[in-house]
Amino acid sequence: MGLFIKDIATMDDLFVHMLQDIYYAEQQIQKALPMMMQKASDPALREALKSHLTETQNHVKRVEDVFEMHDVDASGVDCPAIDGIVEEADDIVSEADNQSVMDAAPIAAAQAIEHYEMTRYGSLIAWARQLGLNECAEVLAKNLEEEKAADQKLTKIALSSVNLRAA
Amino acid sequence: MGLFIKDIATMDDLFVHMLQDIYYAEQQIQKALPMMMQKASDPALREALKSHLTETQNHVKRVEDVFEMHDVDASGVDCPAIDGIVEEADDIVSEADNQSVMDAAPIAAAQAIEHYEMTRYGSLIAWARQLGLNECAEVLAKNLEEEKAADQKLTKIALSSVNLRAA
Repeated sequence: MGLFIKDIATMDDLFVHMLQDIYYAEQQIQKALPMMMQKASDPALREALKSHLTETQNHVKRVEDVFEMHDVDASGVDCPAIDGIVEEADDIVSEADNQSVMDAAPIAAAQAIEHYEMTRYGSLIAWARQLGLNECAEVLAKNLEEEKAADQKLTKIALSSVNLRAA
Repeated sequence: MGLFIKDIATMDDLFVHMLQDIYYAEQQIQKALPMMMQKASDPALREALKSHLTETQNHVKRVEDVFEMHDVDASGVDCPAIDGIVEEADDIVSEADNQSVMDAAPIAAAQAIEHYEMTRYGSLIAWARQLGLNECAEVLAKNLEEEKAADQKLTKIALSSVNLRAA
């Protein structure tokens, strides 16, 4: 997230910084998902990634809503974590030429993305509640629930057709 | 993880690559935890990080055991994801000078680390089972359970004293 704690004197500063971190992350994920979707051969996986792309577009809007509710301009900060996670996803997906492994690897990559988002939303929601920003917490909780559901859907796909076929 | 799918023709190749990824990641985490521990002011947080450092040392050994059980030399591969996550943790912790925020931010950083490990162990265990490597899966499951428990412990600390004090 490229932040330095010396710029963060209060929990409110920390909350805003993490909001900027997830705002940047959601935008990077929005860019990464179409390539993963295009390469996936399993129809259920392709559908799950497509549906999560639509959700991700909504997540960006919800984070913008939270910025507005908190009276702060929406902006992102560099986030080496999501850059690294997306770089690994790109490495796996872009060079893929084996259909079976191709479906298993992007699931793992997408789940790494979901888990990053889940942990960041978890922190943001806890901090929002402690700061009395309950409406912000409610909006962020919607994104968290969709990330969890997307992760569970990917686990289900991984445990059913895709990986059994790959093995 | 810096892998290219053209080098991964089978699920077994993918399994070994992900094992190399988590091996590198656990080693980086082992290096990052002492600094986070040293900076944390909350005794419960410091204790949780210290206990997780011991667990992490065991995780490295268990991953080495899995390499051996699978008759592959233990080695790591570059993992931009964990590098990015640890870079963010360093950014937050190294410049810290505000005690309250200082405890809240490292919890978030440590939880991002836990979630990365949880998702990678989840994939590894599923693939090991599909490959019939049930003993490997059992060893990896021990690491996963400890990562989950560490994450839950941090959530508990975050929701109790630390963040309430920070707010």
